Amino acid sequence: MAQINDNYLKLKTGYLFPEIARRVKEFQDKNPKAELIRLGIGDVVLPLPPSVIKAFHEGVDEMADSRTFRGYGPEQGYPFLIEAIIKNDFQSRGINLKPTEVFVSDGSKCDVGNIQELFGLKTVVAVTDPVYPVYVDTNIMAGRSIIYLPATVENNFDPPLPSQKVDLVYLCSPNNPTGTVMNKSALEKWVDYARKNESIILFDAAYEAFISDASLPHSIYEIEGAKEVAIELRSFSKTAGFTGTRCAYTVVPEEVMAKDSSGKKHPLNPLWLRRQTTKFNGVSYPVQKAAAACYTMEGKKEIKKQIDYTMNNARLILEGLAKAGLQTNGGINAPYIWLKTPQKMDSWNFFDKLLGECHVVGTPGSGFGPSGEGYFRLNAFGFVEKIKEAVHRIQTQLQIEEKL
Amino acid sequence: MAQINDNYLKLKTGYLFPEIARRVKEFQDKNPKAELIRLGIGDVVLPLPPSVIKAFHEGVDEMADSRTFRGYGPEQGYPFLIEAIIKNDFQSRGINLKPTEVFVSDGSKCDVGNIQELFGLKTVVAVTDPVYPVYVDTNIMAGRSIIYLPATVENNFDPPLPSQKVDLVYLCSPNNPTGTVMNKSALEKWVDYARKNESIILFDAAYEAFISDASLPHSIYEIEGAKEVAIELRSFSKTAGFTGTRCAYTVVPEEVMAKDSSGKKHPLNPLWLRRQTTKFNGVSYPVQKAAAACYTMEGKKEIKKQIDYTMNNARLILEGLAKAGLQTNGGINAPYIWLKTPQKMDSWNFFDKLLGECHVVGTPGSGFGPSGEGYFRLNAFGFVEKIKEAVHRIQTQLQIEEKL
Repeated sequence: MAQINDNYLKLKTGYLFPEIARRVKEFQDKNPKAELIRLGIGDVVLPLPPSVIKAFHEGVDEMADSRTFRGYGPEQGYPFLIEAIIKNDFQSRGINLKPTEVFVSDGSKCDVGNIQELFGLKTVVAVTDPVYPVYVDTNIMAGRSIIYLPATVENNFDPPLPSQKVDLVYLCSPNNPTGTVMNKSALEKWVDYARKNESIILFDAAYEAFISDASLPHSIYEIEGAKEVAIELRSFSKTAGFTGTRCAYTVVPEEVMAKDSSGKKHPLNPLWLRRQTTKFNGVSYPVQKAAAACYTMEGKKEIKKQIDYTMNNARLILEGLAKAGLQTNGGINAPYIWLKTPQKMDSWNFFDKLLGECHVVGTPGSGFGPSGEGYFRLNAFGFVEKIKEAVHRIQTQLQIEEKL
Repeated sequence: MAQINDNYLKLKTGYLFPEIARRVKEFQDKNPKAELIRLGIGDVVLPLPPSVIKAFHEGVDEMADSRTFRGYGPEQGYPFLIEAIIKNDFQSRGINLKPTEVFVSDGSKCDVGNIQELFGLKTVVAVTDPVYPVYVDTNIMAGRSIIYLPATVENNFDPPLPSQKVDLVYLCSPNNPTGTVMNKSALEKWVDYARKNESIILFDAAYEAFISDASLPHSIYEIEGAKEVAIELRSFSKTAGFTGTRCAYTVVPEEVMAKDSSGKKHPLNPLWLRRQTTKFNGVSYPVQKAAAACYTMEGKKEIKKQIDYTMNNARLILEGLAKAGLQTNGGINAPYIWLKTPQKMDSWNFFDKLLGECHVVGTPGSGFGPSGEGYFRLNAFGFVEKIKEAVHRIQTQLQIEEKL
């Protein structure tokens, strides 16, 4: 009989968000009148910006006319989008990239899930903990085990370098879920480690657009030498509201190398190109047109306005939770607020409590890894009225026992 | 140092189509005035049907309004699309499927590339040869080797069952590249084999819409017992011109099982759900809206017209090549014509000859596997004027030496 990939059996039963959906459904079935406010899944609510919509429609119209119709495009994305990405996201910060180093895709979750395929099964993988579950699950599916580097209030969310040698390390900054951001020296420490140990850094910068502090790096390539050791992942999902529209990209500089089992070095760029041309067929053309509009003058203004809106929400949450006596992290250069559960309450218990008492859905910290236990994630993506209402409910309805 | 997945080094240098692109570019650089006709990559040229365009625009408009905006959708696709698929593609042929058995994706190439992840690395994989290269390359990337089952003129493109036991077999009907179609008894033979040997069939039906012969099955589930052993892949790419728009789906019936290393049986459906929810984030919402419009009354009529257009092209090619003295297969219930190269010429030599003498781009048969050597693929997707011109050039400019 055909045999399954046994590694799938090592995964925990439910991916985090389906489990949240299950509990919410159960609650709604019992409380059909409760008006839920969802700050759980980090999903956007604002419509696509007008410039993006306009370009999206234009792309669709081109598909209606045989003179402008597009069939298969380059798997790695159209040059017009790649050029706009390089110019606006990198050249503007003093980073030069070649068009062949940027790979457009239908999502960072996909890229982050697929990139591990390039590495051998014995690769030693480290993640900071709490962690975006996809980093872990996709490596478990391939049969690798994971080293967790705890990032907590106690170490100011800046985990010490691993004591053992790791081959591959996932860094996410601004961080999902903690909302904290690595500064230049924190990144330098990792680039230095990777160069010394010939490790690869997978740098997830899906939330870089939320950085307002001018001293913080947006790209790992702002660090000298990073191009030799780092792959960077970016997304239009949160920046421009593309969670349901689907577009992202991954940068694989030509300099990044890894060795084969005989010790010979190979650049990763052609391997990723081979992976993408073999197992992927490019992003929908009208979607790429829409994504490129994010880089027009108008598009940039509209996106900035949406990000300001979200970050105003984050401020309201931070201020409101502080008044409710809750301890928070993040939420300043990132759309996530990472709160410490009161009285060291278990994360899922706090999830049920917040849902039951305030009808507010958040994400239990333990869903992000062992060091997330005792924490809880809220996101700032909702409508401001809902955010205010959620904060109000937390202040007035959440029954936090007085500390003795 | 981080170690690569060594299996990538076992892949042949170029995936077939990039190699074709390279040779065509080289030719164009030397012959800038040559007017090429491209019948190589099986890409569509007709614009998206009007109903599809209309729904696509509506989907984009919904994304412009916060009341109708959609963020993350279900990774496995929206119920409105899944229901339309089941009703129109399966119920209409007497097949009942549950909504949880259909997984919408951004392409059959992606699904066919990713599905092998569900299986153990020691899985014995068979393909019919010639073969769509993705079946082979994605298994090589994972470290599996492949058993080729030759399908040639000599066995009427109906390869005998494998002599050794195989766990996983890829079948493609209507076939890419040979353009031949498996009839009911050929499919029954395979379903019977799979049930007896507890194998899994991956049935690629991306071209089923081109079947006109009423006696031929469109789905493997038309064969009794197939739901226990078969996964079916379908695509909107060729059916409705979605190669640049990106939408497809895969059916994983609840009954399909495989065992773990301890011998315990597991259904594959939840494993694929886990794979897709972990490494994929669903298809762009406006694209799903557009795909659903293929199933409206108007949409069906428009698509039928496009398929008739393509199959008229196929007829012109078949007739024209016959007059040129070339021996052909396929092209009746499939958009591919599989011709035998004259005088047993090597496939790539014939590619260069056809490009050089007729300025027509086709696909060398050997790019599809060892049994493709000595064959050549043309597709019928072009504009009819171009098809006529290509046929004319082949009849008048191709220098076929007289048989002695």
